[in-house]
Amino acid sequence: MSLIEPRVLKGFRDFLPPQELERRNMVEKIERTFRSFGFVPIDTPALEYTRILLGKGGGETEKQVYRFTDQGGRDVALRFDLTVPFARFTAEHRSDLPLPFKRYHIAKVWRGENTQRGRYREFTQCDFDIVGSAGAGADFEILFMMQKTLGALCGTGKGAVTIRLNHRGLFNRFLESLGVGNKSVEILRQVDKLGKTGKDGVHTLVEEITGKEIAGKILDFVSLGEEGDFDRVLKKLKAAVGEGEDTRRLETVGKYIKETGAADSFVLDPSITRGLDYYTGIVYETFLNKLPGIGSVCSGGRYDNLTGLYSKEKLCGVGSSIGLDRLQAALEEIAGPGPRGYADAALACTEGWSAGKAQVLAEQFRSRGITCEVFLEIQKPVQQFMAAEKKGIPWVIIPGEGQLVLRNIERRENREVPDVEAASAIIAPAAIPGHV
Amino acid sequence: MSLIEPRVLKGFRDFLPPQELERRNMVEKIERTFRSFGFVPIDTPALEYTRILLGKGGGETEKQVYRFTDQGGRDVALRFDLTVPFARFTAEHRSDLPLPFKRYHIAKVWRGENTQRGRYREFTQCDFDIVGSAGAGADFEILFMMQKTLGALCGTGKGAVTIRLNHRGLFNRFLESLGVGNKSVEILRQVDKLGKTGKDGVHTLVEEITGKEIAGKILDFVSLGEEGDFDRVLKKLKAAVGEGEDTRRLETVGKYIKETGAADSFVLDPSITRGLDYYTGIVYETFLNKLPGIGSVCSGGRYDNLTGLYSKEKLCGVGSSIGLDRLQAALEEIAGPGPRGYADAALACTEGWSAGKAQVLAEQFRSRGITCEVFLEIQKPVQQFMAAEKKGIPWVIIPGEGQLVLRNIERRENREVPDVEAASAIIAPAAIPGHV
Repeated sequence: MSLIEPRVLKGFRDFLPPQELERRNMVEKIERTFRSFGFVPIDTPALEYTRILLGKGGGETEKQVYRFTDQGGRDVALRFDLTVPFARFTAEHRSDLPLPFKRYHIAKVWRGENTQRGRYREFTQCDFDIVGSAGAGADFEILFMMQKTLGALCGTGKGAVTIRLNHRGLFNRFLESLGVGNKSVEILRQVDKLGKTGKDGVHTLVEEITGKEIAGKILDFVSLGEEGDFDRVLKKLKAAVGEGEDTRRLETVGKYIKETGAADSFVLDPSITRGLDYYTGIVYETFLNKLPGIGSVCSGGRYDNLTGLYSKEKLCGVGSSIGLDRLQAALEEIAGPGPRGYADAALACTEGWSAGKAQVLAEQFRSRGITCEVFLEIQKPVQQFMAAEKKGIPWVIIPGEGQLVLRNIERRENREVPDVEAASAIIAPAAIPGHV
Repeated sequence: MSLIEPRVLKGFRDFLPPQELERRNMVEKIERTFRSFGFVPIDTPALEYTRILLGKGGGETEKQVYRFTDQGGRDVALRFDLTVPFARFTAEHRSDLPLPFKRYHIAKVWRGENTQRGRYREFTQCDFDIVGSAGAGADFEILFMMQKTLGALCGTGKGAVTIRLNHRGLFNRFLESLGVGNKSVEILRQVDKLGKTGKDGVHTLVEEITGKEIAGKILDFVSLGEEGDFDRVLKKLKAAVGEGEDTRRLETVGKYIKETGAADSFVLDPSITRGLDYYTGIVYETFLNKLPGIGSVCSGGRYDNLTGLYSKEKLCGVGSSIGLDRLQAALEEIAGPGPRGYADAALACTEGWSAGKAQVLAEQFRSRGITCEVFLEIQKPVQQFMAAEKKGIPWVIIPGEGQLVLRNIERRENREVPDVEAASAIIAPAAIPGHV
């Protein structure tokens, strides 16, 4: 029989244990933080009616979506984000959802994108939203949870990220004051390119829409964030466009930020516009301080009508999304590969070995929080040490008469210990019960 | 604009927070046990080349698979199990996988099945395998890990499940001894229906293949497991077919089972055949002692050629699969809905509330391992208590001058405490640091 070449589709990938361990580790940290805030998980189908996912139909998205006719003749598609399914979910289960509803959803999405820019056609999104609360307290909670979550992921707590925020209304009012409010969509689209194209490039692009003088004013406005200090930037913004609902909202959010002592992580930046997204209030992007060039790893904002396509009821909300794939790549670039051993220890397979007795001994380590593989093949010690090294397992436990020998793989040293208790203290001191 | 009716496809479903919390709780317990044994996670794409997934093509499967042509003209399909992708994965990454390779994979699969029997078209599988180890130690490790995992899920440890095991070779040898070895596929298919169809029904079906006399002997043979005791059943099986590699393997596995003191959970049952699956050695199914009628919640066996479609190298293995959806439904039926509160506590929103200060206070609880939602709307206390009740949150924390008031939602009682430390001890005594 001829063999089939084993390969994945272009733009798709496997996760081998080191990557998948790191990924699950990230998801666990994210979920722990979300849950600590009382956010709860939901899940929705990967496959939905195309009419529900595409709604009124959208040019770019429509081209990218994986769409087909199923066995029952239905026009179906794989979800391309978690926002549209969440809107459908909220409209469908409205009466079962206690408002304000704080949910998260970590799941794969699919887009048949051009893969040349290092993008994947299958990737994981991690969305979190508060629906049904219009106040600045909800805006702030999302921002604060972003800071906590990314701090936990970067392992450095404060100082890990800079969250740059703005308010959509502010920019719109400014454009109106310049008499170009009717061109705001095109202008927003160009200003959103600041990170990639740079100031001069954007100046040229905006000039084509508004003429030279107004383009200069717009570029000055979006550059105000460079000053840094939140209050000083807010003052300048007020001077430029006057007080409004937007400046008052930013002022309140700024007050909350100061109250939590998290001011170092936040910058008021009028250049943040989130392009053509459906946001209507505050918007924000998040940059890793050690690798800002990779772009935003967590972005979002406030919207005023989540379920409009499916329901007459207007539900406002505020939310954000972490791009897990980009973030994982960035954290690897910053910190290098993490500690990705298959287990804390392996139990060697020696003369007179019995799988039952080996598992009983291994369970004594496992019950102390130590992950412990049982080696299954009788081999020379050096081969078992090599097997442990390949799996990144730092210790091999060799059972003996009335004692245990611990092999430290990295240092190539053996050490005798009297019992499991003593061995556990050496292998993972932090995992001993009562000392967690 | 006309509204789109929000609904999911037939056979698909949403997971609302109570179900999804329970589901994540289950997955966490499963993963913790797997990891404690040194098993590591992998992931593969949801979408693959149809040629890879269907291989030589298989009647029933082919009809059920979600298959289509993608934007690039490729014939692609959604995975319908995790076994085929694992075979492709193993062949493709063979040189990066340290053997024996112990992996797990928890992910969704899709089958356009008839949904009448309460089956879903999207469901979660949880597969775990040891590849590259031919010995009884590997067979036993999978069985032992099944017992540990299901014990953890059922919360009762020992006595939660019965794992019924058999060896394919034994049944085949028996059929050969009766002179019907050439009809083993059809006979296996009928014997596999024992659980659904009952003894008499299967007798009739087998009789059509083998005639009355032989059918009687086959039914007697597969009924030997009813005796219970492992050794006694093994003795009878040996008497029926003589010693062989299969009885020696079962004997060794039985010895390991006794060494771990887990004998209560295992039954040697010659009626377990796993129908037409590709197993070649031991096979097993797992039943919940409190709800055996729901069928097997975890099944598997040993196979001798995982990657045959994609590689010349023969890789044997042994593995098992938990059907998470069926198991979740069963556990709910046994125990009723679990404790599925959105959080341990909620911080009330009172006069003079500020989101920043509220989050600072909430963080003091969160840092003690207590999940704490911050309520965002100033409302009468009774309304906030009702909001907590809706979310299954047992405690509401009401901040006051130099003290805190704790509202117990279920008992409708208030209690004053001096500080966060005292409040934490009441809300979740087990979560206080140092006392975990």
